[in-house]
Amino acid sequence: MANEIIIKPIGHVTFGRKETIDDYWGDSKAVIALDAKQFSQRAIQGLDSFSHIEVIFYFHLVNDQDILTADSHPRGNPVWPKMGIFAQRKKDRPNKIGVSICTIDKIENNFIHVLGLDAVEGTPIIDIKPVMTGFVPNKTEIREPEWAKTLMCAYYKNKDEIDNE
Amino acid sequence: MANEIIIKPIGHVTFGRKETIDDYWGDSKAVIALDAKQFSQRAIQGLDSFSHIEVIFYFHLVNDQDILTADSHPRGNPVWPKMGIFAQRKKDRPNKIGVSICTIDKIENNFIHVLGLDAVEGTPIIDIKPVMTGFVPNKTEIREPEWAKTLMCAYYKNKDEIDNE
Repeated sequence: MANEIIIKPIGHVTFGRKETIDDYWGDSKAVIALDAKQFSQRAIQGLDSFSHIEVIFYFHLVNDQDILTADSHPRGNPVWPKMGIFAQRKKDRPNKIGVSICTIDKIENNFIHVLGLDAVEGTPIIDIKPVMTGFVPNKTEIREPEWAKTLMCAYYKNKDEIDNE
Repeated sequence: MANEIIIKPIGHVTFGRKETIDDYWGDSKAVIALDAKQFSQRAIQGLDSFSHIEVIFYFHLVNDQDILTADSHPRGNPVWPKMGIFAQRKKDRPNKIGVSICTIDKIENNFIHVLGLDAVEGTPIIDIKPVMTGFVPNKTEIREPEWAKTLMCAYYKNKDEIDNE
C-alpha cells in the first residue's frame, strides 16, 4: 500500500452549529473562512458564479477508537439492515472525511457564507469544489435501499417544518 | 490553523485507464480494490443495494510544484474567465483530493467494479460513500457559469459518441 498522505486544512468553519446532531441541517447557516495565510481571494475568484459548492472536510471531533471498519446498523437502528461503513455516510469512518453539498449565501473577502452545510463550528476544511451539473449523476436513475430514503427524510428539513407536520 | 491531518488509503484503483486525459470517461471501466489487510468484506456489506458511489481519491501523479493556489483559465482556455482554484475542479489543487460519482457495475469479494470513474490505475482511494438521493442537491436549481457546461460536454461521453457527432 502507498504511504500516508499529509493533508493541510485550507480553512475552517468559523461560524456554525455547535452540537453534532443528526438532523435538521436545512436552516443551518455557516461561514467558511479560507486561510488567509495560504490563499488570497484569487483562490475563490468567480466562485459566486455557482449556486452550490461541494465541501470536503474533516470530522475532527471523532475519536480514533470510535472509527468503524466493519458493518453496523445505520444510526444504530436495528430495524435497518447492517451495512458496511463504506455503504453508509456516518462520521465514524476511516480517514474521517466528510463530503457535503451546500448553497452559497454570499462571499465576503475570504469568508464564504453557506446554507445547509452539515459541519460544526471549528471543522477543518480540506477542499472546496464548485458543483457542476455535468458531475451530478442524473444520467442514470439513482437506486438506493429504502432505509436510506427514511434516514434522510429529516436531514435537510428545518426544525419548524417537522414541528408543523 | 489546525495541525496536519494524516490519511491512510483504504484501497487503490487496481485496474483502469492508464493515461490522464481530460475527457471521454463515460465508457471507462475501473476496479477499486479495498485493502484486504485493513478491511474484511464486512466494510462494504450491502453496498450493492446502491447504484452509485462517491469516491474520494488522491491525485497522486500531480507534482507539488504544479499545485495552483490562485486563479487560472479552466483547461488553460483563454476564452473562459480566470477562476480561482476552488472555483474549478482541476486536479492541480491544494491537497490533491478528487471526488467523483460513478456507477457500481459489480462487486466481487473486496473488488468494486465501477463505470465512469475518472481516476487512473494506481490511484489511492481515501473513502467510499454511497450516493443517497437525499444528499443530491435537487432541492434548489443548480446555477453554473456557461463555461462549466461547455467544459463538461464531452467528459462523460464515450469516444465513439463524439466521433459520430
